[in-house]
Amino acid sequence: MISNFFNPESIAVIGATANPKKFGNAVTMNLLENNDLETEIYLVSHGSKEIDGKKTYESILDIPHPVDIATILVPAKYVDTVIDECIKKDVKGIIIVTAGFGEVDEEGKKKEKKIAQKCRDAGIRVMGPNCVGIQNVDIGLNASFIQLPPKGNISMISQSGSFGCATFYEMERKNLGCSKFANIGNRIDVSFDEILEYFNEDKNTDIISIYMEDLSDGRAFLKVLKNIVPKKPVVVMKGGKTNAGLKAASSHTGSMATNYEILRSAALQAGAVVCDNFDDFLTALKTLSKLPLPKGDNIGISTNSGGTSVLFSDQIDKFDLEFAQFSEDLIEKMRPHLIPLVKMVNPLDMIAGAGKKEYYEITKAMLQDQHIDIVVPCVVIPPFLEMKTDEHYKGMIQAWNDTNRKKPIIPLALGGERFTDVKEYASKQNAPIFFTPHQAALACKILIERQNVLIDKYGKKVD
Amino acid sequence: MISNFFNPESIAVIGATANPKKFGNAVTMNLLENNDLETEIYLVSHGSKEIDGKKTYESILDIPHPVDIATILVPAKYVDTVIDECIKKDVKGIIIVTAGFGEVDEEGKKKEKKIAQKCRDAGIRVMGPNCVGIQNVDIGLNASFIQLPPKGNISMISQSGSFGCATFYEMERKNLGCSKFANIGNRIDVSFDEILEYFNEDKNTDIISIYMEDLSDGRAFLKVLKNIVPKKPVVVMKGGKTNAGLKAASSHTGSMATNYEILRSAALQAGAVVCDNFDDFLTALKTLSKLPLPKGDNIGISTNSGGTSVLFSDQIDKFDLEFAQFSEDLIEKMRPHLIPLVKMVNPLDMIAGAGKKEYYEITKAMLQDQHIDIVVPCVVIPPFLEMKTDEHYKGMIQAWNDTNRKKPIIPLALGGERFTDVKEYASKQNAPIFFTPHQAALACKILIERQNVLIDKYGKKVD
Repeated sequence: MISNFFNPESIAVIGATANPKKFGNAVTMNLLENNDLETEIYLVSHGSKEIDGKKTYESILDIPHPVDIATILVPAKYVDTVIDECIKKDVKGIIIVTAGFGEVDEEGKKKEKKIAQKCRDAGIRVMGPNCVGIQNVDIGLNASFIQLPPKGNISMISQSGSFGCATFYEMERKNLGCSKFANIGNRIDVSFDEILEYFNEDKNTDIISIYMEDLSDGRAFLKVLKNIVPKKPVVVMKGGKTNAGLKAASSHTGSMATNYEILRSAALQAGAVVCDNFDDFLTALKTLSKLPLPKGDNIGISTNSGGTSVLFSDQIDKFDLEFAQFSEDLIEKMRPHLIPLVKMVNPLDMIAGAGKKEYYEITKAMLQDQHIDIVVPCVVIPPFLEMKTDEHYKGMIQAWNDTNRKKPIIPLALGGERFTDVKEYASKQNAPIFFTPHQAALACKILIERQNVLIDKYGKKVD
Repeated sequence: MISNFFNPESIAVIGATANPKKFGNAVTMNLLENNDLETEIYLVSHGSKEIDGKKTYESILDIPHPVDIATILVPAKYVDTVIDECIKKDVKGIIIVTAGFGEVDEEGKKKEKKIAQKCRDAGIRVMGPNCVGIQNVDIGLNASFIQLPPKGNISMISQSGSFGCATFYEMERKNLGCSKFANIGNRIDVSFDEILEYFNEDKNTDIISIYMEDLSDGRAFLKVLKNIVPKKPVVVMKGGKTNAGLKAASSHTGSMATNYEILRSAALQAGAVVCDNFDDFLTALKTLSKLPLPKGDNIGISTNSGGTSVLFSDQIDKFDLEFAQFSEDLIEKMRPHLIPLVKMVNPLDMIAGAGKKEYYEITKAMLQDQHIDIVVPCVVIPPFLEMKTDEHYKGMIQAWNDTNRKKPIIPLALGGERFTDVKEYASKQNAPIFFTPHQAALACKILIERQNVLIDKYGKKVD
């Protein structure tokens, strides 16, 4: 049934309007914007006879065709009547975008329950109220009032629409992409679990991400997680981890207290990636999107900046990760490419003069070495010796390409976010880049844990 | 004496060369680039008769004028001889850029000690070896092989040159500026403490930042910190906090083990800002550069994104910060500007439709309210309702300007880094902007702690 929301044959926007200052206009325009959309769009409007050249209906009951999904944007006081009409029209699903229910007061919670019961009796599924809507990026369906993210392999369920919006902005910056998005708001009917199961079956979804503020049935959620994790990685970000956060969440989505520590350890136990903050959440999505899994946990590091490898080494300890031991064989391979001053230890400090050639050769040697499972080339982009600002990064990525991207590479460019050429090359190559030692070490940790989850818990082999 | 390094009447570059692939060229060109520099530059070169139209000398002893500072870039094996010549020339200070000493092996450590002793006997101060050099941005003096940062009020001492380089890139991005920079490398003579004392007396330095890998005399360092902190904030970032990091640091700068936890708690005790990672270090510099101190610790929050204020509230708990209580008076002032759906609680969720006017009025009301000490307006930049992408931020900053920037404001734009117009406005206005709940809460914490240090420990009043 959830599939109907993401692949409807027809959608009606109830509360459509030509007034660009209203959300009913935003959803309408987002749906109409895509000329190639195969979904039929019907507009139900009180005030506008026509919107962007498309005729409107006075009521959903006036539409002379079946309607799969009704998106409701009328003011809260009219929602009940509109729901009755939707039931009469025999829609399959309803998205209530309108706010002003359970997140406001007890009265609102009661209204929600009534609506939920009515729809349940009619066999109609409901998302919302108090949400921005849903999106299926694969087919260009934007049934929400926020922007479509770039197309990709991450699907997301979020209890905050604006969290989705902020994540999409960052996906653009980080060259990540989304397949499907659902903001379920106060979630009076359709649950996290159902959407997660749908994402699990969805062939375009490789990574599942969740922003949640509360959870009504922790046991069911964890069961679903355990079911999904062997197949697809799940990245979880919780809002309302603390008392203060919970209080804010109760105003936001009418959330009930959820013990974060219990949720967190259970989700970790199930093999999910649990993120403590927004930056980590994005780092997790980037890591899982861009990188293959390692076969082991031995990390090989090179650098032109002693400070960067020192800071990265601190993070290695913090995340309880392992340094690779350089074999004699590897040392012999690397030595000819380095100046005599270089000490052949891990992290390998190639010193400030190292350029593209050194980064290419050393990165390739490490990628080809059987005792190294993850390669972390660090760089502070040098402003000296006529070096090109992107040559070091290009050296790393060309080595990665020449070894068929079989092993994960975690390029760490400290302070490198300033360099457009580097970021553009990363984007063009669909290659990873990280800008702080914390992010780079977290990426290593996420890959290793994912590999361990698959091997230890689920007996899967990484190949 | 340290002043001579930053304000020399003359500098000689020993090991200058016309070859752009050598560090001796990089330092030379960086010094010559500034036509307005009042410092006399002399070039000592073995191979190049002329560099960039400037004549060279065979030896420092051939220079027919006094030389204040000698910068040495010759290969390690020649350094000893060159030092003898510098002593004969009676220079005031020496910067040894050349690497290949104590960071390599015991032999190198011995050589360092010999050089240090020789110079001490001659009454000459030494920075380095194994460093990028020093900079005085105020007068445009770049006696290093890295780029000059933007001019500003932060001075920095770093045991890693590339850490300085990376920080400068971020300073450009974050509209921060630097006054003086010293990379003291293996620091065989001039100590952290002496440079810190110099920064403390320097009228262009408002904020002092430190990247350190080890410390030979912890007691002396803490004494200096205690001396400086009542006058200027000190931001400390330690590399080599863990065993792995220390091992890497010993390769990098020949560092000895320093117990990080002891150093950390002592530095905190002295009132320094101790940062755990690069991102926090930059956030601390931004916060202290851009914001006045609060009079108390009550934080008032507004938002158009429930998710963002939930995540920020989590951080409030994590950092042990305080929510302000909205007074009846404040509520009466704010209510007319908000739609009826808005609940008048802190965090104030103004809901997705809030635009420039709401942000201006609500931010101003909070800035003017005597029960609020720090104002945190949160925003996810809306892609809907024809809103301008920078209007929310402009509303906040105009309210800050109209209240004469007396109270700290911490704008939090989740996912907002994508918006060039917003960043440009922040830069033009020299106003702060933060992009993650963690950064924003850390900024609050830093301001409150700084205020507490001044009031509780040193009896200073914030006005």
